[in-house]
Amino acid sequence: MIREIIPIAIREVASGTRVLDWTVPNEWNLREAWIKDLRGKTIIDFRQSNLHVVSYSAPVSGRIGIDELRSHLFTLPEHPDWIPYRTSYYRETWGFCLSHNQLREMTNPEYEVRIDSTLEPGHLVYGELLVPGASSQELLISAHICHPSLCNDNLSGIGIAAHLARHLLSVQHRRYSYRFLFIPGTIGAITWLAQNRNNLSRIRGGLTLVCLGDSSPLSYKRTLAGNTEVDHAVSHAFQHMEEKTETIDYVPYGYDERQFNSPGFRLPIGSLMRGRHGQFPEYHTSADNLAFVHREQLASSYEALRKIIEVLEANRTFLNLFPYGEPQLGRRGVYREMSSANHDHQLALLWILSLSDGSHSLLDIAERSGFAMETLRDVAEILLQCGVIEEK
Amino acid sequence: MIREIIPIAIREVASGTRVLDWTVPNEWNLREAWIKDLRGKTIIDFRQSNLHVVSYSAPVSGRIGIDELRSHLFTLPEHPDWIPYRTSYYRETWGFCLSHNQLREMTNPEYEVRIDSTLEPGHLVYGELLVPGASSQELLISAHICHPSLCNDNLSGIGIAAHLARHLLSVQHRRYSYRFLFIPGTIGAITWLAQNRNNLSRIRGGLTLVCLGDSSPLSYKRTLAGNTEVDHAVSHAFQHMEEKTETIDYVPYGYDERQFNSPGFRLPIGSLMRGRHGQFPEYHTSADNLAFVHREQLASSYEALRKIIEVLEANRTFLNLFPYGEPQLGRRGVYREMSSANHDHQLALLWILSLSDGSHSLLDIAERSGFAMETLRDVAEILLQCGVIEEK
Amino acid sequence: MIREIIPIAIREVASGTRVLDWTVPNEWNLREAWIKDLRGKTIIDFRQSNLHVVSYSAPVSGRIGIDELRSHLFTLPEHPDWIPYRTSYYRETWGFCLSHNQLREMTNPEYEVRIDSTLEPGHLVYGELLVPGASSQELLISAHICHPSLCNDNLSGIGIAAHLARHLLSVQHRRYSYRFLFIPGTIGAITWLAQNRNNLSRIRGGLTLVCLGDSSPLSYKRTLAGNTEVDHAVSHAFQHMEEKTETIDYVPYGYDERQFNSPGFRLPIGSLMRGRHGQFPEYHTSADNLAFVHREQLASSYEALRKIIEVLEANRTFLNLFPYGEPQLGRRGVYREMSSANHDHQLALLWILSLSDGSHSLLDIAERSGFAMETLRDVAEILLQCGVIEEK
Repeated sequence: MIREIIPIAIREVASGTRVLDWTVPNEWNLREAWIKDLRGKTIIDFRQSNLHVVSYSAPVSGRIGIDELRSHLFTLPEHPDWIPYRTSYYRETWGFCLSHNQLREMTNPEYEVRIDSTLEPGHLVYGELLVPGASSQELLISAHICHPSLCNDNLSGIGIAAHLARHLLSVQHRRYSYRFLFIPGTIGAITWLAQNRNNLSRIRGGLTLVCLGDSSPLSYKRTLAGNTEVDHAVSHAFQHMEEKTETIDYVPYGYDERQFNSPGFRLPIGSLMRGRHGQFPEYHTSADNLAFVHREQLASSYEALRKIIEVLEANRTFLNLFPYGEPQLGRRGVYREMSSANHDHQLALLWILSLSDGSHSLLDIAERSGFAMETLRDVAEILLQCGVIEEK
Repeated sequence: MIREIIPIAIREVASGTRVLDWTVPNEWNLREAWIKDLRGKTIIDFRQSNLHVVSYSAPVSGRIGIDELRSHLFTLPEHPDWIPYRTSYYRETWGFCLSHNQLREMTNPEYEVRIDSTLEPGHLVYGELLVPGASSQELLISAHICHPSLCNDNLSGIGIAAHLARHLLSVQHRRYSYRFLFIPGTIGAITWLAQNRNNLSRIRGGLTLVCLGDSSPLSYKRTLAGNTEVDHAVSHAFQHMEEKTETIDYVPYGYDERQFNSPGFRLPIGSLMRGRHGQFPEYHTSADNLAFVHREQLASSYEALRKIIEVLEANRTFLNLFPYGEPQLGRRGVYREMSSANHDHQLALLWILSLSDGSHSLLDIAERSGFAMETLRDVAEILLQCGVIEEK
Repeated sequence: MIREIIPIAIREVASGTRVLDWTVPNEWNLREAWIKDLRGKTIIDFRQSNLHVVSYSAPVSGRIGIDELRSHLFTLPEHPDWIPYRTSYYRETWGFCLSHNQLREMTNPEYEVRIDSTLEPGHLVYGELLVPGASSQELLISAHICHPSLCNDNLSGIGIAAHLARHLLSVQHRRYSYRFLFIPGTIGAITWLAQNRNNLSRIRGGLTLVCLGDSSPLSYKRTLAGNTEVDHAVSHAFQHMEEKTETIDYVPYGYDERQFNSPGFRLPIGSLMRGRHGQFPEYHTSADNLAFVHREQLASSYEALRKIIEVLEANRTFLNLFPYGEPQLGRRGVYREMSSANHDHQLALLWILSLSDGSHSLLDIAERSGFAMETLRDVAEILLQCGVIEEK
């Protein structure tokens, strides 16, 4: 479905492949999964909701007494209408997830149970798209795709990533290349890192996109280093937004930023989100559905991401070519180009001339001067055209 | 007139001389400038106030209709008694500045107008004085001299600079050499920098002196680097003054600190002021006159500057010659010399011994210990005389 | 008496020995010291309190008129029941200290006075104990022993040091070696430093213990550098205590931390205390007695010190051996070992893996993550046993 929006490559990595400290696991496929009463009436059917089966459940078939069956049934008593999401990657077991109301109606002594699944050598599958830019330096945007039927966590991230990619493909000039990953959480990031280990130096920074459609404030989780270009770019974008935003320090828990920031890689990847990992009641339940995410929040998350990308694209470092005193700008046509400029723009110009000594990027200048990157970018463009500065 | 106070050298740099990215402009001279009514009654005469003519006005002579004339007349409607100060360096034009009340009385259809000026090769003229000290390292004090008949901006700075120079000439021992500049703003600083380009490494720091006579609080604008010795010295002096003071970060706008701090030079020159550039109503008007500056404010600005200079002169770095444990001070006569010292002075002494490891100057010690430089200087002098420390 | 608790070595250094900038002084011994009225009634006797004689008093014997005698008598009028503590190291004199009430009763015109003392070549005496550990790196614990009959300042420090040493001797594994010093203030520290000058590189850090039994809040005075391992360890221990604590910056005044932190040595030695040097009324008086110190405060000071030592012992630096992405912990038995662990412990584990890149110690990880060192130490132990990390 992502391919209806952008032309991702679909990569397959065979089960058994060594990836860093891990091995790509067998592939789990599920054909049927239901519980029926003995009269053949379907009580639970995975075709109604793919949350109904514990992910990676082993096959099972036959009549099972309610007492034994109960130990394979998972509910949320505090939210009796919701179905939990459960997975059991590394312990062979089986189980069903259902609403607590459904469980209360299961009063018979026995039920017919069937899970027709296989866990066999196959492939780990992920999507990847490189949107090339003027530079081979890459910004990495990653979304996880492993949560069945959950909308905020993870469909919102997938959607926003795909639409950002579509936008970037439509833009004539991109300074950076952009790499988009649509990967299963943890093992997908580990697999991608293992397969691309020798090309990681091209990653200049990036973001994982998670839980971006709910009504919590837009939040940024810093990279482990905490003061990288991405951190400054998000900080600047947030300051110049009307929306209330929050920024939190790195914690080695959450989504795939954990893998990217691990000690062997230390890729400066932060995370953009609204509701935080594990901290909203709908998290990992059937209530994380289309009703839980809002068009306005998705749009605003997308706009914030665009803004961050714009800041990164604009964050060039220049050299004042006339660094001794103030250059005579009139003679070089700068004032003519800035004819529509007001006093503020002139001060922005003086800041750029003053700090463009090779050790301050436009973002540094923005932080020190208080000007928006947009203003600095436009003024720098004039100075560049008039031959007063050059890119370092 | 400055020469009535101190023996400055007067330097002349010929029009057409290349100075950094600029060229010394032609010299503007004005012999006559007036507006008369057709009966010969003088309405405006530059001999009444040299603000009446837009600086650098081209010559004009003849009868001019009021409508055309109006486009050459500049007033301040919100302050109908004040004459604005206007200049037109790089665009050939002419004009008169007058009070709005004067303009209102100009009801005739025509006037006789005359500006007898020349704009021809000549010289840029500035004043310079070096007060030599024990070290060839220099502190630079600069005042601009280009504003006609304005008292706070710039006569107050000129006066205080001249009196500081006179004081320093009268002092027997000066650690640093002091260079005083009386220069036209911008082009003067650029010209001086161009002519002294190869000797700038001797500049250890300095101040531009501007707007020091009005009733605003004494203010310091930091150097671009923001943490240089001058910045620390002013910070210390301000902390140990009773007067309310303010400190603001560097902005690449204001007076000649802009040129000195430019990327190619990065001279650590801050700025001492009261009213700030462009932020008081009298700025660049005839109301910036003798009534606007106050004897007490000028005196207090001067005293603050003296205090800053004292801090810089006292800021030496010493080595404790007995750094292993505490030296036996009694045996070396230190307590005898400090006989009048109270407990506080003894603690000052311990701080000097404790931090004089070559990487802390007295100002560093003052900042860490809270002692006044004056106390530390006096105690260090005793330790020096008793052979316990030596200058690094 | 310390030897009843721990097996200290008693070191003697002969009078006249050069120690750094000092010389070990003559030894002062006192056999008798009293004031009697002419009827032979004892008014003051040093056998009642050894504070009664000014330390280092020269011998005196005979009848002395009350006026002359008064100039040799020291009292505290504002605390008429207390006897002051006085010493006169480097000026030959004699004197008695007594309560102001005692002085008021001395109404006779003459008294019989006797001080039978000697000030002759002898030895400076101090106690030392090395409790060896796995590493030859040492933590230094120092208490001063020069204050006669004062309980908070200095018996509390001596007692706590001795009991810590006894505890450490009873512990099977000690990572560091511990050196305990029981030394006269200033000259003792200088003597020890002089005698051990070539072995100081083994001192990793330490504490002087002073005034630890009164009811002031537990306080830590930082090392001169202020950010050493000891400073961080105390900060961490204080944060994880229920007791209210205070931390103050280094001042080159107080106890022997002055000598240890002097520029030639810069040993990172902080100071643990309650009441501060010179800042409680009982300081250097007979009121600094057994009633002034409290069992609970001594116990709590001791526990705090134990906690600080535990933090230092636990502060190892590890290397994550599987730094690329997250290691597969299940396969390595980590989860089995952590079976009793709750979510918090798992987050502690992720922090250790995330920051164990060789440049972060466990204390760095504790500061960044907010986890207690105890938790991190226990989790690191599991990771170490499972071969996931190794000590750097």
